[in-house]
Amino acid sequence: MAISTSKTLTTTLEQQYQVVRRRTEEICAPLEIEDYGLQSMPDASPPKWHLAHTTWFFETFILLPHGEGYDAFHPRYGYLFNSYYEAMGVRHPRPQRGLLSRPTVEDVYQYRAYVDDHILAFLRQAAMDPALIDLIRLGLHHEQQHQELLLTDLKHGFHLNPLLPAYREDLAGADHVSLGQTSILKPLGWVGYVGGVHELGAPEQGFAFDNERPRHAVYLQDFSVADRLVTNGEYLEFIEAGGYQNPAYWLAEGWMTVQSEQWQAPLYWEYEAGRWWIMSLGGRRWVCLDEPVCHVSFYEADAYARWAGVRLPTEAEWEVAAQDAPIQGNFAEEDRFHPMPLQGQQRPAQLFGDVWEWTQSAYLPYPGFSPAPGAVGEYNGKFMCNQMVLRGGSCVTSQSHIRASYRNFFYPGARWQFSGIRLAKDGMHLGSQP
Amino acid sequence: MAISTSKTLTTTLEQQYQVVRRRTEEICAPLEIEDYGLQSMPDASPPKWHLAHTTWFFETFILLPHGEGYDAFHPRYGYLFNSYYEAMGVRHPRPQRGLLSRPTVEDVYQYRAYVDDHILAFLRQAAMDPALIDLIRLGLHHEQQHQELLLTDLKHGFHLNPLLPAYREDLAGADHVSLGQTSILKPLGWVGYVGGVHELGAPEQGFAFDNERPRHAVYLQDFSVADRLVTNGEYLEFIEAGGYQNPAYWLAEGWMTVQSEQWQAPLYWEYEAGRWWIMSLGGRRWVCLDEPVCHVSFYEADAYARWAGVRLPTEAEWEVAAQDAPIQGNFAEEDRFHPMPLQGQQRPAQLFGDVWEWTQSAYLPYPGFSPAPGAVGEYNGKFMCNQMVLRGGSCVTSQSHIRASYRNFFYPGARWQFSGIRLAKDGMHLGSQP
Amino acid sequence: MAISTSKTLTTTLEQQYQVVRRRTEEICAPLEIEDYGLQSMPDASPPKWHLAHTTWFFETFILLPHGEGYDAFHPRYGYLFNSYYEAMGVRHPRPQRGLLSRPTVEDVYQYRAYVDDHILAFLRQAAMDPALIDLIRLGLHHEQQHQELLLTDLKHGFHLNPLLPAYREDLAGADHVSLGQTSILKPLGWVGYVGGVHELGAPEQGFAFDNERPRHAVYLQDFSVADRLVTNGEYLEFIEAGGYQNPAYWLAEGWMTVQSEQWQAPLYWEYEAGRWWIMSLGGRRWVCLDEPVCHVSFYEADAYARWAGVRLPTEAEWEVAAQDAPIQGNFAEEDRFHPMPLQGQQRPAQLFGDVWEWTQSAYLPYPGFSPAPGAVGEYNGKFMCNQMVLRGGSCVTSQSHIRASYRNFFYPGARWQFSGIRLAKDGMHLGSQP
Amino acid sequence: MAISTSKTLTTTLEQQYQVVRRRTEEICAPLEIEDYGLQSMPDASPPKWHLAHTTWFFETFILLPHGEGYDAFHPRYGYLFNSYYEAMGVRHPRPQRGLLSRPTVEDVYQYRAYVDDHILAFLRQAAMDPALIDLIRLGLHHEQQHQELLLTDLKHGFHLNPLLPAYREDLAGADHVSLGQTSILKPLGWVGYVGGVHELGAPEQGFAFDNERPRHAVYLQDFSVADRLVTNGEYLEFIEAGGYQNPAYWLAEGWMTVQSEQWQAPLYWEYEAGRWWIMSLGGRRWVCLDEPVCHVSFYEADAYARWAGVRLPTEAEWEVAAQDAPIQGNFAEEDRFHPMPLQGQQRPAQLFGDVWEWTQSAYLPYPGFSPAPGAVGEYNGKFMCNQMVLRGGSCVTSQSHIRASYRNFFYPGARWQFSGIRLAKDGMHLGSQP
Repeated sequence: MAISTSKTLTTTLEQQYQVVRRRTEEICAPLEIEDYGLQSMPDASPPKWHLAHTTWFFETFILLPHGEGYDAFHPRYGYLFNSYYEAMGVRHPRPQRGLLSRPTVEDVYQYRAYVDDHILAFLRQAAMDPALIDLIRLGLHHEQQHQELLLTDLKHGFHLNPLLPAYREDLAGADHVSLGQTSILKPLGWVGYVGGVHELGAPEQGFAFDNERPRHAVYLQDFSVADRLVTNGEYLEFIEAGGYQNPAYWLAEGWMTVQSEQWQAPLYWEYEAGRWWIMSLGGRRWVCLDEPVCHVSFYEADAYARWAGVRLPTEAEWEVAAQDAPIQGNFAEEDRFHPMPLQGQQRPAQLFGDVWEWTQSAYLPYPGFSPAPGAVGEYNGKFMCNQMVLRGGSCVTSQSHIRASYRNFFYPGARWQFSGIRLAKDGMHLGSQP
Repeated sequence: MAISTSKTLTTTLEQQYQVVRRRTEEICAPLEIEDYGLQSMPDASPPKWHLAHTTWFFETFILLPHGEGYDAFHPRYGYLFNSYYEAMGVRHPRPQRGLLSRPTVEDVYQYRAYVDDHILAFLRQAAMDPALIDLIRLGLHHEQQHQELLLTDLKHGFHLNPLLPAYREDLAGADHVSLGQTSILKPLGWVGYVGGVHELGAPEQGFAFDNERPRHAVYLQDFSVADRLVTNGEYLEFIEAGGYQNPAYWLAEGWMTVQSEQWQAPLYWEYEAGRWWIMSLGGRRWVCLDEPVCHVSFYEADAYARWAGVRLPTEAEWEVAAQDAPIQGNFAEEDRFHPMPLQGQQRPAQLFGDVWEWTQSAYLPYPGFSPAPGAVGEYNGKFMCNQMVLRGGSCVTSQSHIRASYRNFFYPGARWQFSGIRLAKDGMHLGSQP
Repeated sequence: MAISTSKTLTTTLEQQYQVVRRRTEEICAPLEIEDYGLQSMPDASPPKWHLAHTTWFFETFILLPHGEGYDAFHPRYGYLFNSYYEAMGVRHPRPQRGLLSRPTVEDVYQYRAYVDDHILAFLRQAAMDPALIDLIRLGLHHEQQHQELLLTDLKHGFHLNPLLPAYREDLAGADHVSLGQTSILKPLGWVGYVGGVHELGAPEQGFAFDNERPRHAVYLQDFSVADRLVTNGEYLEFIEAGGYQNPAYWLAEGWMTVQSEQWQAPLYWEYEAGRWWIMSLGGRRWVCLDEPVCHVSFYEADAYARWAGVRLPTEAEWEVAAQDAPIQGNFAEEDRFHPMPLQGQQRPAQLFGDVWEWTQSAYLPYPGFSPAPGAVGEYNGKFMCNQMVLRGGSCVTSQSHIRASYRNFFYPGARWQFSGIRLAKDGMHLGSQP
Repeated sequence: MAISTSKTLTTTLEQQYQVVRRRTEEICAPLEIEDYGLQSMPDASPPKWHLAHTTWFFETFILLPHGEGYDAFHPRYGYLFNSYYEAMGVRHPRPQRGLLSRPTVEDVYQYRAYVDDHILAFLRQAAMDPALIDLIRLGLHHEQQHQELLLTDLKHGFHLNPLLPAYREDLAGADHVSLGQTSILKPLGWVGYVGGVHELGAPEQGFAFDNERPRHAVYLQDFSVADRLVTNGEYLEFIEAGGYQNPAYWLAEGWMTVQSEQWQAPLYWEYEAGRWWIMSLGGRRWVCLDEPVCHVSFYEADAYARWAGVRLPTEAEWEVAAQDAPIQGNFAEEDRFHPMPLQGQQRPAQLFGDVWEWTQSAYLPYPGFSPAPGAVGEYNGKFMCNQMVLRGGSCVTSQSHIRASYRNFFYPGARWQFSGIRLAKDGMHLGSQP
């Protein structure tokens, strides 16, 4: 019967809700109160803001319109914690999020508890409109995205602090990551795929963001993708070959950025006392040669690929390569929050987890795409300009959050995400080195 | 015999060379000496620079490496008139092109004459390497691009002058363009195309830029394109419906641009004394309702399409629609330098000429694309980021310069090109209004 | 005997040290931990930084060079909490002070306690070099300056928070300040002074900053100064007379600033619901007409004076008028932290306390000035360019900190200090209204 | 009889008018038409604008209000060629003056001829209001200021051109200026002055700008001024001693400017091929050691003086030293347009001509100053903030334009004027080296 089914569904949803919401607070547990207000650049947000904004989502889209007799926790929070939803009215300016010393951290945790109580009561209450279930599920995926941003934004904020604070010193893998000063990896190999008409995008059933749909046909030429990610060691060869000094490898805008930003290496790399150091969420370490290179921009990924004589995959190629692969890898659940050297025999390996993989595809609507009506429709569609697609999730992405059809997107110059490089090339090559 | 064929070819090339080079100078004939130095923004260049840079191309890529005993006209011109070719060394900074009061206009015309003499002698000389023929041909297409930029840059420069100078007062059509204050057009109709695997791009033979190749298969869904361009009258409805005030129609970056630039209408439109005025190369006029709307950014084109409930075409869709259409229309040869109301019965109409048509496709490499080796390889490939494709040429494009496979590209916020709007939608619709 | 005198002196100094240092922490007592990191603009600093920087002064100039066996509290604090002392090495960039979530507030209070213990031990120890006594005294005056900045910076930070937090709701005078909606003041009168050669600057004995010396002769014409400060009510007349719309009253740079910053009233004024509101450290209130106008820039003070047909005093005129006046008024000790309406019969009144009074004098060295050698010499002299002198202290200045010869200085566009307006004019006028 | 006297006066004025107006055009005679539009930075203006703006002054302040039946030459020129006179209405934005390719140079010369005809007719006409005579005289001094700016602005524009054009190759002194690679000068000496009450400013009679009045008493301490200007050779010692690398010599804002602008030497100096070169209006030359150093900012002048252990003079000191000196020196009339090594025996020497001498005085109103009523009152008074006073005229100033009381003023970071360094110190020193 429809109602009992719905009941079962919402029970599950209730559990999911609690798990996801609790997880966000666990991520914040190691923080000092002072850290909650840290905003190191306009693109990043303070932890306090992430905690409140994800709560605002449930208050604004569920409780205020649908929660009978619900009173907003605070009349100004709607203004303070709206992000980019123009349809929801004027917003507090993004670059000033770090200036909100009030509400306090304590206030924000009370806000979370208040909204959680009401959402859970709402979920237990009765049969729910399936559209509302979808909306709550969207809210949870939205919160998982912010869990990742919490960590990327914190890492950025901490690295500007001359005291070089570590987010946590007990992260998994922290004991051995600096050891790999000699590569023990096999050379990069290739896995080929036959061209022709392929299907792309999320199927109609199951959760997916609107930008992953509709599923549609594309025509691909034969292509090959690298059987693993590009490593720090390989990227170091590019640096040492003068990659950052030679315009021939760079897109025009990439080259301008290299010069204006004076890039010499990936973000968080520093050369000191005769060696390269890297800033991680566990503190400062030597660069490990066999770890996947991380915190590179699209410009750097593209330049590296040109230097290597190959290219980045398109998002269609990536998805074809990934659609039958198991969703396994170095995710946030591993509690490393750092990419790790290749494990196992799978080919291609490391498609999921470790680092988001830049593709050469601009972030554009799929044929037949139309955003959801209303404010929720602002979620993805309106960013479809000037950004590039990344695929596969990273070491700070939750395993339960990622899919083969998942499309992440950032500006080509962004480096503070856990973003890395997978190579591709034309034709079905069987050889090893690019 | 190969050599005589080559002889014939170069004879033709010699004529082409003379025609194209002369045309550039004809475009400049109405200018005052003072106008030759005008640079109104970093994206634009002074006429004098266009005259010299196109000449520099032939000197740098033909005469210096291949012209036996050739002496450069001036040792510093290589530095002054290089544009973006990093491989050719350091360049004079683009935003300072307007600060070069020397060389004088007279000097630059002498530079042109000197290089022309040497190129013509070179062409007459003997059998030529086909690669050099291709390079000279590329130089002529390059010069045709700058002929168009000469006019777009001048228009921009003149419109900032409170005296509102006209480039020429004797342009064709100047007598009647302001009259159409009432629309006499039929409502917009649609032409449908069957989906499936289509071919895209320039064939291997014949001149085309490297970015149009290789020709390759794409898979398209059924689609329809509008049977004519969007007019000023239709765009005015969008303005009057509050299009520039409502974020719902805009990409996020578009909306930011509308606000920061305080856009209220297309570039060169001004509301004064109860009506809309437009700045043209022939001077200031009333806005004519049935002329295609022009000087809109991609953001505006996209917002208009959303407001109208449809979308822009992809470049693949546009090319499928255009590949059998005759290359006819309102080109520079018409000597109007302004879009004109729909003429004739062709469906879809106005694919070529009048205005460059924004597509919803980002400017990216075709599958299998590789840039030419050396400095010439910087021509197109390195701009393949953050720009959108436009198709079809405009009223300032030479008819001999355009093709169905021609890919123009500009930043989504650019408005000083003659850029307009063709609508598209999913499926094979037969109705009339979007 | 010399040693016992010195002993007495240092005992007093020990008490002074404890009083001043404790006062800084009392000012911070009402803050939430989150407030300690708030930096709302590059010119302002977070409370945590003020707490640490004033401590750094004692550590750097006393303990490290002179404290036998003293170990720095933390090796990086010298870098983090240096302000503008170039001679002390590279500094952490000022605009990023708000990004230091670590050290925590707790860490900084420990730093204070550690340095206080060592300074107090140092003071008790034995006969001291008089130069060190002077240096410690300088450190205490330096700390009193930062006590004032703590409050001005906090006020600025809080006013950008849409929640409009009050620093304290129990400030003195908070109960009646909004009542004065009708002025009960007598019209402004004038006090005349005879010109001729006057003496200016601090005498050789007693504490003064280096910029107050040497005492020297100046020649003044006859002049008059207003017998009280300009009030909100009087300034409102300027606003309502279109003062912010008429370039005739403004210096060229002032007018540019009015336009670029869109100034319409003093900082912290807001027009809402039919009346003017003001943000104070005690929260938001109505504007009280008889309070001295506050938070105006030099440009506004100068424009107001021109509109009123008079001018601002020079610093020499101000000092002549103030040199025999008692140092009494509305200081920080009153615990109002807000200017208050005229009290008492003194003429001229309000010379000390309430608001810093802009003069028309640029901040320049006195004849014969030379800065102290070494890093301490950077205290004042190197700012002698592009700033204007203010005199008399404000409602957030400590009474024990101010003197008739005290020269404060800020950029002419600065408004976040408690700065107001005293008028002056040429000649010895006896009338009342300007 | 009054009328005949007036007649005589206006006859003289007529001659002065013709001399000054002709001189402006003589300065422009060596220019190419292309040079007339050159604006190399917002602070500079194109020659065409100087030619038109000085004409606009006479049209706006004389002919339009007082010329019976006078028709403006062009209705938009009032808008285009107004400079900073807010009272005269909206102005064309200063940074866009270089974008006015129209009116043409020919148009502007016709504008000059038209206004000259009308002014001369006006002058011949009859008895004139003395206030109008003053205004015309002001217009001529205004034009002489622009004659100087024409040359300083051109020099700036040409030095950005990689072709390094010379304004004129036949300037006086061009043959020997590069020879002085060994200094033949005596060490700098000092001339002492007794302190006490001195008079400062222009007397009531005779032409002077409003900012030179009223003449008033000041009290000075004993002081000495250097008996000549600082030379390139002496300044080179400062450079070689690391002056540009040591913050100890610099005002805080000066040091920030050194770093942000990467200053290493005066403007127009370049180190190449083992020696220092200098750009002059006559082309590029070696630096001559005995020429006065030129094109330094106030920051550099002040830093040099600190390094030398002395200081810059105040404007009062300078004027006391200059008030009995003959107005002789290397002025524009010498046709060198470049400073020259010390000539003659006068002490102090080089007070007039060669280079404007930075003083340590901020540009502020004299006691009792009030600007003229109306738009002409905007001439000087509204700039009395953030600028420093320079004295004595330069090698591009007309001898007939300068006075001991003349106050020039520029921002402390400005370097494109012919500005140099005279040292001063406290007390009446008789020695030689500082």
